[in-house]
Amino acid sequence: MVQLDDLDRAILRILKEDARLTISEIAERLNRPESTVHFRIKKLQERNIIDKYTILVGKELQPKSLAVVYIQAETPIIEDFLERYILHITKMLSLLPNVLAVARSGKDGVVALVGEESPEKLNRFVDENIKTLPSLKQVEVFPLDEFVKGEEIIGLLAGV
Amino acid sequence: MVQLDDLDRAILRILKEDARLTISEIAERLNRPESTVHFRIKKLQERNIIDKYTILVGKELQPKSLAVVYIQAETPIIEDFLERYILHITKMLSLLPNVLAVARSGKDGVVALVGEESPEKLNRFVDENIKTLPSLKQVEVFPLDEFVKGEEIIGLLAGV
Repeated sequence: MVQLDDLDRAILRILKEDARLTISEIAERLNRPESTVHFRIKKLQERNIIDKYTILVGKELQPKSLAVVYIQAETPIIEDFLERYILHITKMLSLLPNVLAVARSGKDGVVALVGEESPEKLNRFVDENIKTLPSLKQVEVFPLDEFVKGEEIIGLLAGV
Repeated sequence: MVQLDDLDRAILRILKEDARLTISEIAERLNRPESTVHFRIKKLQERNIIDKYTILVGKELQPKSLAVVYIQAETPIIEDFLERYILHITKMLSLLPNVLAVARSGKDGVVALVGEESPEKLNRFVDENIKTLPSLKQVEVFPLDEFVKGEEIIGLLAGV
């Protein structure tokens, strides 16, 4: 289990909002000594609670149309083939720049997050690059039309 | 359209990997004057190409089991009701801490990314909090068993 106290969590929340803040700025906000904040951040990094400092890119670099695509492969007679085929699909999709995320889903499925400049291009991409894959049982496309929570994942995944 | 040259993109890529690097460290890596790098970063921030500096949290703070859930509402006789009902569902889901992301999908659908400590808890959460919603046509659950690309979204969305 993770042992984090209120101060650790407060520091994490501040860094999530602005990871550029200096230790003295964070210390001032929390009304704690700089040495304490410095020590806590060092520990959080050592424990890998803070895994990475990164940037999110703005709208201009983000794809305008997004969809979650679920791909289910046909279950073949030889089970070993299914495993290799799913590995092949996930690898192939990962290499495409407008496939932002790929995960295996169950024994015979793959979920992909696809981004394109317009709904038309997105549909074309799915038609040409996903629906044409051999031995598929089904492909379901769920457009993400408007985020209510978690929209920042696009700024994290968008290519630069 | 976005006007970015190779140097802008190189800076963005470096900051994506480690947003704590100083201007002089970035300048050294790119073999460019500090003043140039400073100016470019300033411009990237002003143009909101760099939208945010943030942290990703490590595995310990991340939910162990994730699933994409697609929720489709029944199309009622009065269309205005559908709109209000979808708004209600998205708002309600957004408030739940283990719903990491929520987006509208089409006129009658919602896509949510749900995270829990175990597959059992995740299923229970879906059964108790999503499948019990009134007037649903269908709920589809796609577990995300193993990320091949884009796994860092979990470290961005995990609560602290």
